[in-house]
Amino acid sequence: MFQLRTDLAVEAREIYNEGKEKEVSGVEVEKEEDKDYIVTRIKILDESGQQKLNKKIGSYITIESPALKKADQDLKDNISKLLAKELKVMIEPMKHNKVLIVGLGNRNVTPDALGPKVVEKVLVTRHFFQDYNKDQDESMANVSAVSPGVMGLTGIETGEIIKGIIEKTNPDIVIAIDALASRNMKHISSTIQISNTGISPGSGVGNKRKPINSEYLGVPVIAIGIPTVVDAATLINDTIGLIIGEMKNHTKEGQEFYSLLEDLSSRDKYNLIKEVLTPYMDNVMVTPKEVDDLINDLSQVVSNGINISVHPGIDLKDVNRYLN
Amino acid sequence: MFQLRTDLAVEAREIYNEGKEKEVSGVEVEKEEDKDYIVTRIKILDESGQQKLNKKIGSYITIESPALKKADQDLKDNISKLLAKELKVMIEPMKHNKVLIVGLGNRNVTPDALGPKVVEKVLVTRHFFQDYNKDQDESMANVSAVSPGVMGLTGIETGEIIKGIIEKTNPDIVIAIDALASRNMKHISSTIQISNTGISPGSGVGNKRKPINSEYLGVPVIAIGIPTVVDAATLINDTIGLIIGEMKNHTKEGQEFYSLLEDLSSRDKYNLIKEVLTPYMDNVMVTPKEVDDLINDLSQVVSNGINISVHPGIDLKDVNRYLN
Amino acid sequence: MFQLRTDLAVEAREIYNEGKEKEVSGVEVEKEEDKDYIVTRIKILDESGQQKLNKKIGSYITIESPALKKADQDLKDNISKLLAKELKVMIEPMKHNKVLIVGLGNRNVTPDALGPKVVEKVLVTRHFFQDYNKDQDESMANVSAVSPGVMGLTGIETGEIIKGIIEKTNPDIVIAIDALASRNMKHISSTIQISNTGISPGSGVGNKRKPINSEYLGVPVIAIGIPTVVDAATLINDTIGLIIGEMKNHTKEGQEFYSLLEDLSSRDKYNLIKEVLTPYMDNVMVTPKEVDDLINDLSQVVSNGINISVHPGIDLKDVNRYLN
Amino acid sequence: MFQLRTDLAVEAREIYNEGKEKEVSGVEVEKEEDKDYIVTRIKILDESGQQKLNKKIGSYITIESPALKKADQDLKDNISKLLAKELKVMIEPMKHNKVLIVGLGNRNVTPDALGPKVVEKVLVTRHFFQDYNKDQDESMANVSAVSPGVMGLTGIETGEIIKGIIEKTNPDIVIAIDALASRNMKHISSTIQISNTGISPGSGVGNKRKPINSEYLGVPVIAIGIPTVVDAATLINDTIGLIIGEMKNHTKEGQEFYSLLEDLSSRDKYNLIKEVLTPYMDNVMVTPKEVDDLINDLSQVVSNGINISVHPGIDLKDVNRYLN
Repeated sequence: MFQLRTDLAVEAREIYNEGKEKEVSGVEVEKEEDKDYIVTRIKILDESGQQKLNKKIGSYITIESPALKKADQDLKDNISKLLAKELKVMIEPMKHNKVLIVGLGNRNVTPDALGPKVVEKVLVTRHFFQDYNKDQDESMANVSAVSPGVMGLTGIETGEIIKGIIEKTNPDIVIAIDALASRNMKHISSTIQISNTGISPGSGVGNKRKPINSEYLGVPVIAIGIPTVVDAATLINDTIGLIIGEMKNHTKEGQEFYSLLEDLSSRDKYNLIKEVLTPYMDNVMVTPKEVDDLINDLSQVVSNGINISVHPGIDLKDVNRYLN
Repeated sequence: MFQLRTDLAVEAREIYNEGKEKEVSGVEVEKEEDKDYIVTRIKILDESGQQKLNKKIGSYITIESPALKKADQDLKDNISKLLAKELKVMIEPMKHNKVLIVGLGNRNVTPDALGPKVVEKVLVTRHFFQDYNKDQDESMANVSAVSPGVMGLTGIETGEIIKGIIEKTNPDIVIAIDALASRNMKHISSTIQISNTGISPGSGVGNKRKPINSEYLGVPVIAIGIPTVVDAATLINDTIGLIIGEMKNHTKEGQEFYSLLEDLSSRDKYNLIKEVLTPYMDNVMVTPKEVDDLINDLSQVVSNGINISVHPGIDLKDVNRYLN
Repeated sequence: MFQLRTDLAVEAREIYNEGKEKEVSGVEVEKEEDKDYIVTRIKILDESGQQKLNKKIGSYITIESPALKKADQDLKDNISKLLAKELKVMIEPMKHNKVLIVGLGNRNVTPDALGPKVVEKVLVTRHFFQDYNKDQDESMANVSAVSPGVMGLTGIETGEIIKGIIEKTNPDIVIAIDALASRNMKHISSTIQISNTGISPGSGVGNKRKPINSEYLGVPVIAIGIPTVVDAATLINDTIGLIIGEMKNHTKEGQEFYSLLEDLSSRDKYNLIKEVLTPYMDNVMVTPKEVDDLINDLSQVVSNGINISVHPGIDLKDVNRYLN
Repeated sequence: MFQLRTDLAVEAREIYNEGKEKEVSGVEVEKEEDKDYIVTRIKILDESGQQKLNKKIGSYITIESPALKKADQDLKDNISKLLAKELKVMIEPMKHNKVLIVGLGNRNVTPDALGPKVVEKVLVTRHFFQDYNKDQDESMANVSAVSPGVMGLTGIETGEIIKGIIEKTNPDIVIAIDALASRNMKHISSTIQISNTGISPGSGVGNKRKPINSEYLGVPVIAIGIPTVVDAATLINDTIGLIIGEMKNHTKEGQEFYSLLEDLSSRDKYNLIKEVLTPYMDNVMVTPKEVDDLINDLSQVVSNGINISVHPGIDLKDVNRYLN
């Protein structure tokens, strides 16, 4: 089944559910709504669910908070606490004293700089454990953090760099942060996805290489992603659908044409767009103009959430104090 | 007459000329074609031309070189030399010993960082003239350079900052560099526009504030711009047109619908898109994923061209040596 | 009277007082001691005091907190609040609704980057006042902020750039932040000086150009400085003194030589050092290896203090939330 | 034997040779002088030489060019070519098609940013070899490049990160670049050392951790270092010696005291300084104020030299064209 480009499980589910009456089998969905946010917990249970949604078997937790992009400070703190809570639930069953934080992405491309920016703000402690020859600390976890850059800068796949580091430092878990691509613009800067199925490096930009997941790396991987771009061809495809839908309401010819277009499969429409859009569109991203502010705000929210969840002695009143 | 969003005079002329038989009056056009590039020289001569093309009276020189985005080193050097030649022609009639280079744009947003990056690479000499109390030098011009940032970072309009600096340092001319928005993706990283009519700050991003032009600043302003983004609504509008055009060739209904759409004025179609696209689309840019490499390459080409044209003693074999 | 290199009034006073019995006339000194810090308030009242201490007539408030360099979060917050309190006292008598924050220094040289880093973290609001055509706001002051760079990068004196901006934007006061040079290493990262007599740009680096003060700029200037470097020749001079002092206690010849050295005036000793140290030493700074962390911490403390003192609606619990 | 702090073999040899008549055994020295530079080739042949000079058995090539710090472009190009020539001689005997470039140092501390800056400018090609499944290319070597950061930022020792990457990517050789500490200020920005004995990470800053050398990493390591700082205690020690030497010529008491000081061993004098200088001095560096320009210039010279020496198809006329 043809899938439009998205890294978000909630969107993959929407794509599948279009026109269907009941929930897809092999997929469990749970929702929690609050004044400021909606938390959706999707579990893909088997091959059937994986094949339909085109997402790996595992858990996907999505926090959607449209107000987040307007950077209200109280809301940002609440989302940090919520993120910390969901992260704790995910890591609790595993051994998680030694944590490697990986900030994926190219720091030189603003919408792709989320990972490196989070790494700058996480509280790194492993060297203290090394220097003082300690194993445990009641208030701090043993945290290391790297930003491996991207293959175009280093010549080396991100996955290879991370695996090499893991083999030397032996963390219990990896928390990887990446900027994602969504289908709908509404998710940009408003939606946080946490999953335990890993990240394909360059997801936000469409390339597939060695994945950052537990199968390849040999340790559990928790992935945190926030959409900062929309794939251009996907956006155009959806917009055309909306426009034709609007026109349908206005003209008789519009109604006739709408039926025609509806018959075209998603795939044909998408391919027609790609064909017409020539070579430029493959490598293009759509992102908000104020993306620098968004990346600054979001990296603060995410690093706060990570700091609270991994370091036992840090809570919200402390957390903002580690950012500078 | 409604105009789609573009900073390029060549595109403004295309928009106007759609479907017309002869050249628009009040506008003079001259073209020069080479193996690697096309130079188009547009002069808007009077109010009539200004009103039709929605561009100010003055000169617009456009260098289009599709191969430029693939960063062939010999081509980059040739374009630098060509840019320098065209700049010299433009500044020759004016007094131009004291030059203020202004890099417009937000250095924290990669597609908007062209101006600041060029300023980092220009050869700045004014302090030597000050320290040694000189007026003239046979190999160097008296060059200063600033990157005023953007209003969101400073709270101050770029135009106000520049005017304040001009009133203190009294340059003969200003050369301002900015990242632009084009209508067609083919111009991104391939087209350089030089004009003597100034830049509206935030052109690339759609805001209109105090202009960076000779009327406001009191000295001649040469503007150099390269498109690094396309306005999203414009892109979608044009793509829909192309797609419907394609479909027309395939289906009878498509032909009927095509006539219907053709009747819709550009403005109505554009407004329909904006209406459907909700609040997100106003503030969104479409840019290539490898924009960091493009900005690095282009800032080298532009600063080379500026260094060669303003400093009498610098030519191409020297020029790359000032970049680090 | 020969003065060793220092930007700190407290050190200028120490230099003068060496060996003297009573306080220098024309200078008023007040001290306030706390568990974590000492606040010294020096007022130079007349020409006599100015000539003896080699510092302009005006007020100098010094906060010394040795623990500050170890970055204890509670202490950093307390120092921010104290800084805010002292700033408020200084600006209260003046009109201070429209504030221009100026971050002096070269962002590319880590010990000199304090000013630009503070500017990145101050809450800038002037554009909101412009956009909404407001004069007053009960919780926000009208704040703009610039980092003018340094003459070597722009070709333009910092003072000229700031004056040009002031003439366009008409602030009520300027708050300028700079990295300073101290005589004693103990002040690095531990001491904050607030004064109303301005800053000589490049103080930290020894060059004298147009000053950033009220006489030149036409508006009151509050200067905030923190030493991040020690001048090398000064450091060596003092160290030799300490060493000879130590040796005096150990050897008879040492005592004889000590008397000999004591007779040499400060100036002769200093000149002997400079002579021996050849051309290198003029342009050298001594700074801690962990200077990047210090600059990050200190810029947070200073921007917090500024945000609390100028914006009526911001207090400490809010203040850290504006940093990202 | 007590050694003052230096990373340069030429200085280690000077320290040892003070006062001695003939060359130290176990050490071979060769000198080549030119108008613009001196090349010294030191080979430490056995344990005896290693113990006396406190430097590992192996080869140390030093290029000293005092004019280099004044950034004359022709000289910079000549030094790049010379560096390339010496590098080629060193790597020729080894298999060297697959090269890993490692830029050591903290990019956030200007004098320590040499390694990361060089990595930004080296021509990285490994991903092309991966994408096109090639082994060899007649004009390009297979080059990858990383900047592992420092332990304070990542929590992980640089050596561990590099070893992990080597185990995944299997380069033939490693070329590591680091900023060094010298004893004499004259070497700052003027001297380049190439050696095949590796680098102790944090040499420039005095910490000893897992070394970056062939014993630990399992592949040959060529280290390129340029002094950008002088250790403060070493500088003071030497300056005192020079000053007392000067005073000896002026006073009878000076002569007596000079004999006294001469009797003090280097170690006692150095310890006395350290004792007197209290805790501050351990972690302090002395560096030129224009260190940002120096790092920019030197990183260009070094990356040019590396690009010419490793990529068969690149020579000097091409080399500057890869820098932007």
